[in-house]
Parts: sequence; C-alpha cells; structure tokens
Amino acid sequence: MSEAVSTLEGWYALHDFRQIDWTGWKSLAADERKSAIDELLTQTSIWGQSEDDKQGSSAFYVIIGHKADLLFVHLRPTLEELSQVETQFNKSKLAEFTSPDYSYLSVVELSNYVSKPDVDPETDPYIQGRLKPTLPKNKHVCFYPMNKKREGNDNWYMLPMEERREMMRSHGMIGRSYAGRVTQLITGSVGLDDWEWGVSLFSDDPLVFKKLVYEMRFDEASARFGEFGSFLVGNRLSEEDLINYLTV
Amino acid sequence: MSEAVSTLEGWYALHDFRQIDWTGWKSLAADERKSAIDELLTQTSIWGQSEDDKQGSSAFYVIIGHKADLLFVHLRPTLEELSQVETQFNKSKLAEFTSPDYSYLSVVELSNYVSKPDVDPETDPYIQGRLKPTLPKNKHVCFYPMNKKREGNDNWYMLPMEERREMMRSHGMIGRSYAGRVTQLITGSVGLDDWEWGVSLFSDDPLVFKKLVYEMRFDEASARFGEFGSFLVGNRLSEEDLINYLTV
Amino acid sequence: MSEAVSTLEGWYALHDFRQIDWTGWKSLAADERKSAIDELLTQTSIWGQSEDDKQGSSAFYVIIGHKADLLFVHLRPTLEELSQVETQFNKSKLAEFTSPDYSYLSVVELSNYVSKPDVDPETDPYIQGRLKPTLPKNKHVCFYPMNKKREGNDNWYMLPMEERREMMRSHGMIGRSYAGRVTQLITGSVGLDDWEWGVSLFSDDPLVFKKLVYEMRFDEASARFGEFGSFLVGNRLSEEDLINYLTV
Amino acid sequence: MSEAVSTLEGWYALHDFRQIDWTGWKSLAADERKSAIDELLTQTSIWGQSEDDKQGSSAFYVIIGHKADLLFVHLRPTLEELSQVETQFNKSKLAEFTSPDYSYLSVVELSNYVSKPDVDPETDPYIQGRLKPTLPKNKHVCFYPMNKKREGNDNWYMLPMEERREMMRSHGMIGRSYAGRVTQLITGSVGLDDWEWGVSLFSDDPLVFKKLVYEMRFDEASARFGEFGSFLVGNRLSEEDLINYLTV
Amino acid sequence: MSEAVSTLEGWYALHDFRQIDWTGWKSLAADERKSAIDELLTQTSIWGQSEDDKQGSSAFYVIIGHKADLLFVHLRPTLEELSQVETQFNKSKLAEFTSPDYSYLSVVELSNYVSKPDVDPETDPYIQGRLKPTLPKNKHVCFYPMNKKREGNDNWYMLPMEERREMMRSHGMIGRSYAGRVTQLITGSVGLDDWEWGVSLFSDDPLVFKKLVYEMRFDEASARFGEFGSFLVGNRLSEEDLINYLTV
Repeated sequence: MSEAVSTLEGWYALHDFRQIDWTGWKSLAADERKSAIDELLTQTSIWGQSEDDKQGSSAFYVIIGHKADLLFVHLRPTLEELSQVETQFNKSKLAEFTSPDYSYLSVVELSNYVSKPDVDPETDPYIQGRLKPTLPKNKHVCFYPMNKKREGNDNWYMLPMEERREMMRSHGMIGRSYAGRVTQLITGSVGLDDWEWGVSLFSDDPLVFKKLVYEMRFDEASARFGEFGSFLVGNRLSEEDLINYLTV
Repeated sequence: MSEAVSTLEGWYALHDFRQIDWTGWKSLAADERKSAIDELLTQTSIWGQSEDDKQGSSAFYVIIGHKADLLFVHLRPTLEELSQVETQFNKSKLAEFTSPDYSYLSVVELSNYVSKPDVDPETDPYIQGRLKPTLPKNKHVCFYPMNKKREGNDNWYMLPMEERREMMRSHGMIGRSYAGRVTQLITGSVGLDDWEWGVSLFSDDPLVFKKLVYEMRFDEASARFGEFGSFLVGNRLSEEDLINYLTV
Repeated sequence: MSEAVSTLEGWYALHDFRQIDWTGWKSLAADERKSAIDELLTQTSIWGQSEDDKQGSSAFYVIIGHKADLLFVHLRPTLEELSQVETQFNKSKLAEFTSPDYSYLSVVELSNYVSKPDVDPETDPYIQGRLKPTLPKNKHVCFYPMNKKREGNDNWYMLPMEERREMMRSHGMIGRSYAGRVTQLITGSVGLDDWEWGVSLFSDDPLVFKKLVYEMRFDEASARFGEFGSFLVGNRLSEEDLINYLTV
Repeated sequence: MSEAVSTLEGWYALHDFRQIDWTGWKSLAADERKSAIDELLTQTSIWGQSEDDKQGSSAFYVIIGHKADLLFVHLRPTLEELSQVETQFNKSKLAEFTSPDYSYLSVVELSNYVSKPDVDPETDPYIQGRLKPTLPKNKHVCFYPMNKKREGNDNWYMLPMEERREMMRSHGMIGRSYAGRVTQLITGSVGLDDWEWGVSLFSDDPLVFKKLVYEMRFDEASARFGEFGSFLVGNRLSEEDLINYLTV
Repeated sequence: MSEAVSTLEGWYALHDFRQIDWTGWKSLAADERKSAIDELLTQTSIWGQSEDDKQGSSAFYVIIGHKADLLFVHLRPTLEELSQVETQFNKSKLAEFTSPDYSYLSVVELSNYVSKPDVDPETDPYIQGRLKPTLPKNKHVCFYPMNKKREGNDNWYMLPMEERREMMRSHGMIGRSYAGRVTQLITGSVGLDDWEWGVSLFSDDPLVFKKLVYEMRFDEASARFGEFGSFLVGNRLSEEDLINYLTV
C-alpha cells in the first residue's frame, strides 16, 4: 500500500499573468496614464509593506512572448489576502488595460522525503524561512506547473514510498549541483489548481533554467514521471523598470 | 460481467462561474450600479426563500485566479428551476458585466457502494438530508470534476463490483479521517455534463483541500483510476461581502 | 479481416447551439425585439410546415450552463435544405444577438447489427419512420457525440464482426430496458463531423439520461470502447416558451 | 530499417475557411455591399483565369455548422501565388466581414506505393493531370486532415515498407470501389501544416462521404493507424450561388 | 543511469507571430499608415544595425494560412534585448493592428552528440558562427516545435546515451543529404517554452521542407520518439516586400 509523503506548507502563492492592451493604454490621456501608474505604485508600496512586515512577498516581471506581458507573483499567509490583492488590482485603472490570461494558485511546500529527525518545523528558523520566503531579486524568472504521471506502468502514486524517496533524493542532488546559480521555489497545488505543483526558478542567468530542467529530464523522476505544463520566462522589473515599461 | 452500482439522486446542481468586466462595471453610473446590486439582492433573497422553503440552496464565492471571478452554486429540485435561476440572472443588469466562462451541471448523488440494509432512502431523514442539502457556510470552497479512467489495464468500468467496492471503501476511509474539517458534496454528471462527477469541498481551512486530495491521490481508486479536470478555489461571500466585492 | 456493418440512413441532422448576447438584445428597442421575434416565428412556422409535410422536423431547447443558451435541432432530407435553414437563421435579426458556439452535422442512422431478414427497409413503414422521424415532444433533451475507441488492445474496428454484434446486442438490451422512459435518436457522423456518432436522448425525466448513460458505461461496448465528447442538456421550448424566454 | 516511400508532388493547396460577420455585413449600405461583391467577383474571375491558363484551380463552398461559413480552395504552382491569393482576399472589402477561423496548407501528392515501372511521371499526361488538377464541380465537399499513428505497437513509420504497401493497396481497393461516385484529392502536409495529409472528397451525394470513410475505418490502415482531425462538409457554390448567399 | 548530453548555446531566439487586423489598418488615414510603416522601418533598421554589429539577427516573413500573417524572427545575445525588441514593437503604431497569436522563446543550440575532440567551442569560428548565426536569406521558412517522447516503452530520456547518440547520428545523416538545399536552425527551449526544441528550416524550395521532414519521420529518432507541434510556413519579406505587403 502506497502512502502519501507528509509535506509542510507555508504561504499561499498567486502567479498572476496579464496581457497588456497597448492600444487602449496609449489612447489614454497622459495624465490619466500617470494617475494609473501612481495608483499601481500605491499598490506596490502596500505589497512592499507586507514584505517588510514579514506578512508576504510580491514581485513583478515582464514575460517574453505572446503568453503574457506582465507577471505579478504574490505570497500571502491566507487565501483572503491573496484574493484581496487580486481584486484590488482588478479594480484599478491599469487593470482596465490588462486581461488576466493565466494564473496559478498554490502554496509554498516543503516535502518530507528528506527530513531531519530532531527539527521542529514549526519553529525551526531555516524551515520557516523557506516556507515564508521573500522572493529573490534575481534578474530572471521561469515558472511552470507539473504533475507526477499516472499512466500504465509509469504511475508515481502507485510506487512504494521508498522508491519515490530514492528518486526524489537523486532529483534533489541535481538541484543541489546548481546551488548558488538558481533559487527554486516549489509550491504545491493539488486541490488548488490544475496541476500538482508549480515550480518557480530565479536566476541571473536564464541559461541555467534550460540547463537545470534539461539535466533533470534525464533523471528517472522526470523522465518517467514528469508531466509539464506551459513554461513562462521573464525578466524582473524594479518599480523603476515597471514605470519605464509602462511609459509610452 | 461488471455491473453498475445503484445510486441515489437528490437535487440538481448548477455551478455557475462568471468573469467580471470591471471596466464596464466601473464605467456605469453609480446609481445604475446601485440598482444593479439591488436587483441582484432581490434575486439572492428569492434564492434564500427557496432555501428557507427547503426547495433548494444557493451560495456564492469569489474565485481566486484568472479562471473566474464569481461562482454561484445553485441546488434545485428540477432542471426547470435551475434553468430559470440561470436565465433570470442572465437577464439582469449585473449579468451585462459578467461572462459565463465555465459551469457544471450535475445532480446530488449518494453511491450505494456502502449501503445499509434496513433503511428506506426515500424516507430516511439522514439520507434525504444529504440528497437535498443546505450548502454549508464554510469560508472556502473547492470544486473539480472527475472521471474514473478507462484506459488499457486501468479501466474502472471493467472491474468486478467487489473490487470497486473495496477501493471505494478504502477511499471513503480517507475522507472520514477528515470528518469535521471538510464537508464533501458529490454530484453525479454522467449524461449531464462533460465529466462523470463533480466534487465540491467546503472548509474553513483551504489547506485541508490540498491535504485531502493529495492523500487520496495515493489511494488506488485515485492513483490508478482518477482523472481530474480543473480545480477552482474560492472564498465564500455573504450578501454583505458580495456588495463590498462589487463596490468600486 | 474485419468488415463494416451495413447501415441505413435517413434525414440529415443539424444540432445548432447558440449563445445569446443578452446585453445587445436588451439594448434593442422593444419594437425591434418584437419584430425580431416575429421574424423568428415566421421561420419556426416554415419549419413546422416541413414537419407537417413529412419533409423534416425541427425543435428548440434552452440549454443549461455556459456551453450554450439555445439549441435548434433540424432534420431535413438534404444538406442543401439544412444549409438553407442555417443560413436563413444566420441572416435574421435575432441571429445578430447569438453566436454559433457549437453545432453537429450528422445523418439519422439505423445499424444492421440486429436486422430482420424479410424486411425491405426502403418500404417498411416502421424503419422509414425511424429514419425520417418527427422529433419527440419530451420535456428534456441530452446530446453528446461519441466514438468507438481505436487504442492499443481496445480497438473496436479491429474486432471481428461477431464480437461487435454481440456487444451491440447487449448494449441494445440496456437501452430497451429504458423503453417508454427515453427516446434515443442515433445519428451517424463519420465523414460529416468530428465524432463518429451523435446521440440525442429525449425524456420527461432528466434523471433517466444519467441512469441510462451510467448503466451503459459498465457495458463492455462503452466501458472499453466508448469515447465521449461534450454532454449538452436542455429543456424543450414550445413556441410560447421561446417567446417568453426571449422576453426581457 | 524502415524507409520512406517516394512521393510525387504537384500544385500547392490552401483550404481557406472563413466565418462571416453577418451583423456587420447587413449593416453595410446596400451599394457598399454590392461593390464588395463586385470586388469579390473580380477576384473569382482572376482565379478562373488561372484555371483557364492551367496555372491553378479555385472553388468555393458554403460549410454547414458553426466551424465555418465559407471555404475557398485554391491550388497554385507556388507558395508565392497562394500567399498572394490569400493576401488579396484579406485586403478586400468582403474580408472585413469574415474571420479566418481555419485553414490548411498542403501540396497535391501521389504516393508511389503503387507505381508503374515504365512511366515517366514528369511527362505522363495522366499523372500530370492528377498532380495539377482542376477542382471537380460536384455538389458537395468533405475536407479532413489526418495522420498515420505512431503510438506503442501501432507505429506506421516503424513498419516495413512491404507491410505498409500491402495495407495501402487494400485501402486503395476500397477507394476504387467508390469510383464514379466520389473524387478524392490527397494533399501532403508533412512539414507544411499540423497534420500529415489533407483529404478532400467531392461527390454529388454526401452520403458517399460517410459510407466511404466508414468502410475505410474498418480497414487496418485506418483502424490501427489512422488519426483524424476535424471534418468539414459543405455545398459547392457557383458564382451565382455565392452572390445569392451574400445577398441579405 | 541515463545522462544528459552536453549542449552548446548561443543567441536567444524569439519567433514572434502576428495576426493583422486588416479592417483597422485600412481604416487608418493614409498618412498615419505611412508614418506607422516609417516607424516600423526605423525598427527594422535598428535590427539591421544589430546584425551588422554581429549582435543579433532579425528577419520577417508572411505566413500562409490562418495561424498568423507575419513572423518576426529575432536572435539576440540576451533575454533583456529580446524583451526590448518585443516591447518596442508592441508600443509601435503598427502593433495596434496586430495581435500576438503565437510566439516561441528558445536559444540556439548545438548538441554534443557528435562532437570533435580537439576543438574549443568557445573560440572555434565555425561553431561560434553557428551559435550566433545571421539568418539566411532563403525565400521560404518553416518553423515547428518538437519534443522527444516519454511514453511507456518509447521514452527517449530513459535510453542509454549510446543508443541516443546512434539514432541522432542516423538522423543527422538524413539532414546532411539535404545539404545545400535547406538550412536548419535548432533552438533549445527546455525550461524556456512549451516544447523542448524549435526547428527553423530555410529553403528556396518549400517542397524540401516536406521531403526532409517526411524522410526523417521514418527514422527511428522521429518515428518512435518525435512529437511535433504546429507547423508554420511562410515566405521571406525584404523591407520592400514588407512595405508592399502593408500597402492597402
């Protein structure tokens, strides 16, 4: 009988992808555009306050290609707060010129496949820091959702715990060999969104996204059991970058 | 020869997901917005009357992410009543600022895999209460549709009844271990909508959605035979919350 | 070597699903709405004339959920007539406020899996009546398209005729056990539309749709070989109901 | 080691499916509609000139159902000419009231599975006529794209040439039994569009589309190896029919 | 234990497919159209400057069929530059009349399956030229994304390196037999976009696209392991062609 691995959960995460209606935005009077940007900056400053208060973290990115223009990532302690952040943006002036083409709801997750015996995760500062993280400031982001396959003989959820643990250990070792070059944020979404996990990678060198994911694809955990959704890649925007981006 | 398990059916259910056109809604004059909200409240009060009369139940939620903004869940004794509720909303002022992006038609179902011999379901108060339930007031909702797989060796419908019964029993025991933390509403949709069942979970702690669905995924009934559609998660709105949500 | 079962074909069928633009419809002046409804009633009266002349049959339904608002079902002797009916509606005033979200083209089909030796289908009144039927007046409709699977060991089209015949016989017996409670119209669409068959069920009790399709799903013909598309369910509209439905 | 069968190619083909915006078209002033139709007729006359000059062939159809309203089929010697025909239509007045919902790019193909030894295809009039055909004038058209499957044990491209040849021979014999009742135009689209082939059937009796495709589906080449896309069926329009169709 | 083959990466690539809103474009005043084209030519001249400076390469094409009208291919050393090129176009006047229907983000890749021992790829001029190429001037382009399959027994990523190397060698020999007739640009997109690779073919004879891809499909690397996305084919536009194309 297989059994579920226990997991630890932290903050809820909303990846909120938006397409910009440049034609509408450009047709807006300059002072209305300015006031829309000011309104956005008021929101980003509220988001920053949550981060300063250790009550969440937010970051924004320009996405490359047709799938989206902007990505807002929000981490918050509760679904109520996530919903409020989303709704406040939806009611803003700028939102009139964006459409919500994609999003992902999940919760920061640490798996217990590799756990330490003498640590109380509820109080351990390292674990708490990973469950309630501040989003890194790296130049690039890569987001993709994934499942573990359940097809014929390749059924992750029918494997014995020990076999899964061994594959995850090997998988983790690949990840560790990229330490310092990439930060990985795993968010669980079983029961929350259409895939089982979201993966957010942060790096100053986007080639690392390709190298890491490609190397893992030859690892049995991915090769036999990984199912992947859309990959979305972007560049981090500071508030100043965001203003420049919206300047037309 | 396999055989169908007998089922009991209660009220019909419509899960009606709507996207809000905030730009249009904001551009409406304040008094027109007020009168649109008043019209909605008249409808919600009619819905509430049905609930008081034990002739159905309705609830509404704000959905997180791009898949929808609002979810209306309606339970009614007949398809005519469900259609009427839907059409009345479609003709309302507020509906001009929503688009019906997703919906699900099903009927409350109790499976007889685990039935008691000496009970007449047509009169038993407990069973009748479950077939014609009042929607719970928990803070969060999770909805997803699902199938039992029919692929190669993983064909649920070719299994002997006894094997299915045993798997459903084990499945049900996981569910029972969450008793008190989550309320589960199973609605059947074979012949009614694109998947075989809808699952609606209600809880005050959304993490329970993740924990429950994840634990079940390792159970053979899900691991080998479960196929899942989109997961939609939201926060319950009281009438007052709904008014606040629509205030711009 | 497998061989195709011979089939008998009757009238061509168009299931024409439409979404209503309620906002536009409501914004139309009352007299223009009235004249649009009058124009529609002229068309429905032409359709009724075809039915009286035994040159076809038409019916209309309100569909529950987001997939469509209205369904027009048209049976006609030729594709030219079907196209004409569709085009005339497309050019009408009401059509300006509908979008054609889904449709299905097929032809009434009787399979010869179970045929009688001494009957000439071209003249037999019973068979001719089933090939050129008047659509029943039941309160509810259920439409779905389906295929017979061709995957690995579950390949319907590679089975010997005798095995297929036996499975269809068993399948038909389930159908017959619902006699009097449901009317089934099978239309073939190989070479005409994206699935191999359309199934239209008519009943005064929509629970019968669920019971029948669910019971059949445990039958090998469906369990191993059935692939199903979207299920669309609705309530029949008389001309008076249709007028009421369109009254805003 | 499998090997590709050699093929002969003729003219390039564009199947260009269009949806009509009837509301916009009707709102156009009558004289503008007339001038838009005149402009279209100028284009169809240029297309006819190409046909007279043996430099291509064009035909148009009304499609039944929601997938499209009009189908233009163009055969031309080069991609430059195909692109020019498409672009000229896109820039026309009528095109303002159509949207290009689907299309298919391919090239007329004859397979060498069954070839004759003593024939030079570059000069043989029969082969040249089939590679550079004038589109037939039959009343009905059926178009669908298809692949040969590459799944597990059902992998067409891993079969020995001889086995493929034998299956194609048997497949062709079914086709030949419909000689005189249907004209079949095979266009290859590997490297050109999303499926490997397009199939265009032309007949005065649309039931032949169903009978032919259904009978072939029991043939191993289709039963085990055929994968099919959308089927689109329509009625041929003469220029006069086209004018009538566009008259509102 | 399988292991990833090492790869070399060069410039990042954005394939940016756009649909033109001809109705809107035609409704623009002639002088505004002219100034929009002038603005575009300013951008193409900046793109040309990057090419002259060996800091990237850009080319544009008209795509045949409904999937897109225009394709811009951009190669640049960094994601920041790619994003800037995309954003500048998005903010332009012409972009108001285009919609970004599809795109592909990848990076020029050379695989080491067949590598030479005594060469330092970081300095070797041939390799550097292939990693940072100038886009060829051929008349036609074909783009498609692809994966290596991971299904049951057909799992590329579970094969021993030696087996993969042998299949890629055989695959490469087919490619080489087309030398001089087609130029192939392989871009890797694991971790960057939804497929694992993008393939861009350039040729003066579009039939070569079909012949090459079809022949490869019988090769085990494709037959068993190739999964293909949409194929998009177009004709190269010089700046003068582009102006003509946009002239209405």
